[in-house]
Amino acid sequence: MRSRILNLLRQRSGEYLSGEEIARQLDVSRTAVWKHMRELKLEGYAIDAHSRRGYRLQQAPDLLLPDEIRAAVKTKRIGRKIHYFTEIDSTNNAAKKLAAAGAEEGTIIVSEAQNSGRGRLARGWYSPEQQGIWLSIVLRPHFSPADAPKCTLLAAVAITRAIRSLCNIDCGIKWPNDILYDGKKLVGILTEMSAEMDAINYIVIGMGINVNIQEQDFPEELKAIATSLAMIKGQAVSRLELLCDILMQLENLYAVAVSSGFSEILNEWRKYSITLGQAVNVIGIHQQFSGTAVDIDEDGALLVEATDGRHRVIAGDVSIRPKTTNTKENGID
Amino acid sequence: MRSRILNLLRQRSGEYLSGEEIARQLDVSRTAVWKHMRELKLEGYAIDAHSRRGYRLQQAPDLLLPDEIRAAVKTKRIGRKIHYFTEIDSTNNAAKKLAAAGAEEGTIIVSEAQNSGRGRLARGWYSPEQQGIWLSIVLRPHFSPADAPKCTLLAAVAITRAIRSLCNIDCGIKWPNDILYDGKKLVGILTEMSAEMDAINYIVIGMGINVNIQEQDFPEELKAIATSLAMIKGQAVSRLELLCDILMQLENLYAVAVSSGFSEILNEWRKYSITLGQAVNVIGIHQQFSGTAVDIDEDGALLVEATDGRHRVIAGDVSIRPKTTNTKENGID
Repeated sequence: MRSRILNLLRQRSGEYLSGEEIARQLDVSRTAVWKHMRELKLEGYAIDAHSRRGYRLQQAPDLLLPDEIRAAVKTKRIGRKIHYFTEIDSTNNAAKKLAAAGAEEGTIIVSEAQNSGRGRLARGWYSPEQQGIWLSIVLRPHFSPADAPKCTLLAAVAITRAIRSLCNIDCGIKWPNDILYDGKKLVGILTEMSAEMDAINYIVIGMGINVNIQEQDFPEELKAIATSLAMIKGQAVSRLELLCDILMQLENLYAVAVSSGFSEILNEWRKYSITLGQAVNVIGIHQQFSGTAVDIDEDGALLVEATDGRHRVIAGDVSIRPKTTNTKENGID
Repeated sequence: MRSRILNLLRQRSGEYLSGEEIARQLDVSRTAVWKHMRELKLEGYAIDAHSRRGYRLQQAPDLLLPDEIRAAVKTKRIGRKIHYFTEIDSTNNAAKKLAAAGAEEGTIIVSEAQNSGRGRLARGWYSPEQQGIWLSIVLRPHFSPADAPKCTLLAAVAITRAIRSLCNIDCGIKWPNDILYDGKKLVGILTEMSAEMDAINYIVIGMGINVNIQEQDFPEELKAIATSLAMIKGQAVSRLELLCDILMQLENLYAVAVSSGFSEILNEWRKYSITLGQAVNVIGIHQQFSGTAVDIDEDGALLVEATDGRHRVIAGDVSIRPKTTNTKENGID
């Protein structure tokens, strides 16, 4: 009912709509309309109520509410089922539980804040309230588990496309899936899967996007290595628009991957990569070496040319070595 | 306390031990000893109680009780933590929940019966009470997810070793991990994992072993394609001994894999294979073809030589084509 009232107000785009008209169109009492309006206001909707003219929607709250996402998103599948939280431990944890319980492909989990946001390899992810997009997406591809890492690259391409087109920010992808600007982290992606040996049960693609965090808000240890879209642009960015654009890009790229494989997507990843062509240090589980990142292979593994030959890197940390010893690019990790 | 009482009785190996002596050794009252004896009897232990001479353990129940497993198993890690059920939906489901909640490596889940036992690709697995080994094992290897399928082959080798040595049954492995005798299924293995793109959270190796099921007990649709150790040998097989031997073999092979990789294990798998060298039909997700299974590669994928070249099979169903049209080997799947 709430969504339907919001839809009616949105259709009027800022004009007044009488309580009587709303009650009639939705076949409820005027008292019911009045109660729903009160709830919407409590949730943060700026609704102007005029005794004679009726109701007018002035502004939606700056929240990633399911009603707002549904009204704005243009996807068919991804983001049509939405689980929304004001605060949660980690959207990936929630997504894995929902997926294990049968949540359908395209289900998304969005939270205004995470108190235990996670990055790769159990590292933390700073996720303050209403200042970023903390989002997880459930997919159920009929890929082999060996194809799953490429879904991470796909997500990185989708987010890069959205940030470039919506914010006009020239960000790049550090292998495998961090999105950086000027050497500082804008976006982290954590993809997890549950699989049998030859079939994926589900994949969860989690992302943390630093949208409107200000420099002074970052914890000390992150100030040198993290940034946000608002810091780069010098003005706030609409989380809702960016979220919806990312879902759209993801849906498009996922359709490509399902129908014709990953080769186009890997090519686009190469275009956005800031790792390829660089001198890198690789710290893997069993090895540690330096070399030049020359390409990714068809499985998404990073190919690194070292003095002892070519290495194929599928896991571990790859840091780009500073080009000189006295620039801002030092210490990129 | 119960385990300690059982241990004292076992140490006497069939001789009487007085209630007074037990109470003294364990520092409890004689009434407490009496109560524990009553509980043990209720659980199926045949304990002879003599008013003057005391208690004597005649026979343990034919159950895979944690106390029995702990008393018999020789492993250091695998099978030291045991979760036991008389009936459960699926030991793999329980194992995944326990692993997600932090269960340590080597934890096992054993149930006398499963009411929703699962095989590969969501197929069912018939798991009647006390007639088989329905077991799942939690591992946390520092492998890459790409190495995980080889854990399935490892489990197949461990079980084959145990059945061959303990039961003297000449069973073989159908790729990837069914164990067959005379074309009929003895054992199914279902390995599942939770992983990030470059790190395994946990692997669950589930196995269903048809130990003492009799031909008339199998559902009609399984009679032609399934068999049991007892049917082959013509006598019952100790589930406890076999379980403990499998855990030991697994622990040994897993140690080899962790320390020096999978190549020895893949070689042993080749030795037990009934697929290699055979004409096979392959039904994959995207393809369907026939050819000759020539080998497995270093990742455990099946290499099939077909008229249009060599295929690398990592998923799907591979059935061995009957050699003639009129033998018992028809219809192996």
